[in-house]
Formats: sequence, C-alpha cells, structure tokens
Amino acid sequence: MEITGSIKRVREQVREWRKAGLTVGLVPTMGYLHEGHKSLIDKAVEQNDKVVVSVFVNPMQFGPTEDLESYPRDMDRDAALCEKAGASLIFHPEPEEMYDDNFSSFVDMNTLTGGLCGKTRPIHFRGVCTVVAKLFNIVTPDRAYFGQKDAQQLAVIRHMVNDLSFGIEIVGCPIIREEDGLAKSSRNTYLSEDERKAALVLSRSLKEGRKLVDAGEKDAAKVKKTITDIIEKEALAKIDYVEVVDWNTLEPVEKIDGPVLTAIAVYIGKTRLIDNFIVE
Amino acid sequence: MEITGSIKRVREQVREWRKAGLTVGLVPTMGYLHEGHKSLIDKAVEQNDKVVVSVFVNPMQFGPTEDLESYPRDMDRDAALCEKAGASLIFHPEPEEMYDDNFSSFVDMNTLTGGLCGKTRPIHFRGVCTVVAKLFNIVTPDRAYFGQKDAQQLAVIRHMVNDLSFGIEIVGCPIIREEDGLAKSSRNTYLSEDERKAALVLSRSLKEGRKLVDAGEKDAAKVKKTITDIIEKEALAKIDYVEVVDWNTLEPVEKIDGPVLTAIAVYIGKTRLIDNFIVE
Repeated sequence: MEITGSIKRVREQVREWRKAGLTVGLVPTMGYLHEGHKSLIDKAVEQNDKVVVSVFVNPMQFGPTEDLESYPRDMDRDAALCEKAGASLIFHPEPEEMYDDNFSSFVDMNTLTGGLCGKTRPIHFRGVCTVVAKLFNIVTPDRAYFGQKDAQQLAVIRHMVNDLSFGIEIVGCPIIREEDGLAKSSRNTYLSEDERKAALVLSRSLKEGRKLVDAGEKDAAKVKKTITDIIEKEALAKIDYVEVVDWNTLEPVEKIDGPVLTAIAVYIGKTRLIDNFIVE
Repeated sequence: MEITGSIKRVREQVREWRKAGLTVGLVPTMGYLHEGHKSLIDKAVEQNDKVVVSVFVNPMQFGPTEDLESYPRDMDRDAALCEKAGASLIFHPEPEEMYDDNFSSFVDMNTLTGGLCGKTRPIHFRGVCTVVAKLFNIVTPDRAYFGQKDAQQLAVIRHMVNDLSFGIEIVGCPIIREEDGLAKSSRNTYLSEDERKAALVLSRSLKEGRKLVDAGEKDAAKVKKTITDIIEKEALAKIDYVEVVDWNTLEPVEKIDGPVLTAIAVYIGKTRLIDNFIVE
C-alpha cells in the first residue's frame, strides 16, 4: 500500500486504475483512525476495486480557537490500519500541497450549515465542503464514504454533491460505538478518566430519546426535554445543542412525522463531543 | 449531433466515450453563437476526440437589473453552427435541470472577482464559478475552452481550477473581432446603427493603448489616460472602467513590468460592452 503526499501522484495512480477498468472508493479522514473509520474503509473495500484513504487535518475547517494544533495524529498506526483493512493508497498531503499561497476559492451553501454545529462553528462546513470538493476532484472516486456520527456533515456533503452535480455516490455508514455506548471519535482521546465516564451521558440520553420516539412520541419538544434533562444531571457536561431536525433540510421540526435527525453536541470539560440518532 | 437537456444523458454519453478511450473537450456558452464561440469549438475539435458545447443562459450569473430575460437566444442557428464545426453533443438544459428547488450551494473566491466587472456585477463571478464547476462535474472534460474576450472570467476559472484541483486543462482563446475591430459578442445585437458605430471606440482606444505599451511605456496611468481620453470623446459612450491589472492576480498595477491585462467596460447607450488586450 502506497502513501503519497502528492496530488499529481494520486491522479497518475487513479488514471492507471481507470485504464484497467477498476472502480475507486474514497474515504476522507483527518487521521487518528479508529473502528469508525475502519468500518468506512471496510465498506469501501467491499464495494470498490481500489480504495483511497485521505488523511488530512484540514486547517480550513477549524476555527481560530479550535483544536487544529492539538488534534491527535499517528500516521504509522493509521497506515497499519489502512493496509490491514485492504486500502490501496493513502493520500496524506501537507497543507501547502492542498492550499498554495494564492488559494482563495471555496465551496459553501446557504442552507444546512447554519444550525446545529454551524452555530458554534460558523466557518466549519465551508472548510469541509471546500476540502471534500478538492478531494473529489483529485481522486475522482465512484463512491465516497462518510460516517453518520457527523450527521450534519453527511447531509451537507450529499447536498453539495447533488447541487454541484458531482458524479459520485455518497455512502453513509452507521455510528460505531465503544462497548459502553460512547460514539467512537478521535477526540475521545482528549478525555480524562472522569470525563470519559461523564461522556456516556451523550449516548445514554439519546437512547432514552430514541425509546420515546420508538414508542410513538411525535412531539419533538418532549424528546428534546428528555435528553436535555438527563444531560443536565451530569456535572461535567455542558450542552451546546439538543435538536430534532428534518433529516434532509436540517430545519428544526416540532412534530416528528418524517425522516428526523436527533443530534446533540455537549462539552465534557473542554472537549466538545457530538452524537445523534436518525429515524428514517 | 445530439442535443440533450438531461444531465443523466450527458453522463451516459461521456461514460461511453471514456470506455472507448476517447478524449473530451467542453465549450461552455450562453448560446447565440458567433465566430468567437466558433473559434473555441474549432480549437476543441482540433484537440479532442469528442466535443460537448453547453448552451445555457445561466440565471445565477445575472444581477436583478441585468439582461437575463432579453439575452438573445437562437437554438436552431446554434445547433447548425455546432454541427458544422464538428461538435458531438450540445448540452442545453432548462434552468430547473441545473437548479432544483432546494439548490443552495455555490463556488466563489475571495480574490480576482472584486475588481473590474465584479464592481458593477457583484454576484456575477459566483454564478459563473458555480455553473462552470457544475458543468465540469457533469461533462468531466479533459479540456475546457474560454475566450479571452471575457478575460476576468478566464482568470477566475483558471484560479478556481487550480484551487479546487479540477483535473482539467483550461485553454484560453484569442478575441475574435468584426472586420472593423469590434470584439464579437452576443450582446452586439442590442446595438442600434448609431451605437454600433460608436462601439468602435472600445477597440480603437485599446489599439492606441497597446501602441503605447509596445513602444515601451511602463506607466499604467498614462496608458489608462490615453484610452480614457479617446472613449470620452465619443458622445454615446460612458466608461464603466478602464484598468491595467496584473494578468494573474487582477490587482491594479502602477508600473507595467510583467504580464498585464488592460481591460475596459463601456456602456454604449444601455448596452455594456467589454474588451481588452493582454501583454504577456
């Protein structure tokens, strides 16, 4: 399995694969790969002849006060995981390879990005759309894989692909959890022992919310209150948002009667974690 | 030569061509084709196995007070010209095929688009970048052809392609002029007989400006003054801008010592015309 930081080299390799009639899957990541990423790579290996994993901590999607510098990195471990999972190529560019000195273009949208994580992270999705569009243009995959853990990101990317007519199938993959329920995230590594325990409040509260919905509750406010009440009992937790939104438009709903995303963002100490469930 | 309004059909056709190992050129136009467009199609036919001409008057690049409704259209004549020039496919979508009700994504940039035509047409280049990105994703050409008449557009598209890593070669083609010097433009059709004569002031003034530069003049202000003085003598003409800018950054220059674009926009009656020359 090759690792390259060169856009030119990725293009060459993909061109070669195309000539041989092979299909290509792309798994865009920021590295520090865990079982969640592995499930995306597994799916990509299953559905495509060749799989490219990009490992790039994209400066453009981090706000000035966010964790760009401290974001965990471990390329050796990532490479081992990718190789074992059957990936064909890791694209691991330096920021300068992706953004030259005169870089000034961006992809953005007027809907979907303002609510949920967009409220506390106003430039985040613009950075995500821009880097993903760029990765799509470099790798030109048949399919690209995104985790449902970042549900808003998945909806935003699907919308971008439709609007800008990228000829790429977006495959969303289920959230992978630790045995005790915590959604896998590279950011879990920030948690102290006490915080790690407290972080369980995310999945626990969502489980109760889901129970309500499964039992037929249609009132979004009641579902939100159940979740909120549970989180507020946890001393180390501070709610960023608890929302029930339309799964396509990401607009808040009052009544649950279509596909709905229930999404939360909670600070555990200084670490901001997200989790969600979708009822289709 | 096929004419289709369907994105899906274009993708199918291009996929077929790709399977056969053929190269594809794209000539994006707003229709009402003239010799300028024909020169782009000719070049594309020369350099590629198959050529797609898109004919789409893109609502997104017109301001609310601009000429979207009155922009001239003649699909039958366009089709005849394309067929004769050797194009393989015309993509002629309805606005609804390009922009569905939930459309909200866009491509834009923070440099290059604010000056020159961007001053009077603040949303223009955002519309251009978005539709061109979309056309690139639909047609996935090897090369795309743009006229130097729209010099700022050419620079903007080149910048977008570099920034967002489109794997597409942008081919710029020289301005095609009427025998008397007027740059060919679909908008020339708006001109009355008197205005048509007055419109010559654009090419005439640029010719004098170019003479100065060719004779070694380095002071951009002097070149601008020569051009401005000539245009101001024409009663039917009203200057929008006369600018000398760096051909890569489109930033105004004081001293001419690298590749420079001298560009003008002039209202002749109500019709806004543009013209330019580039010294590489």
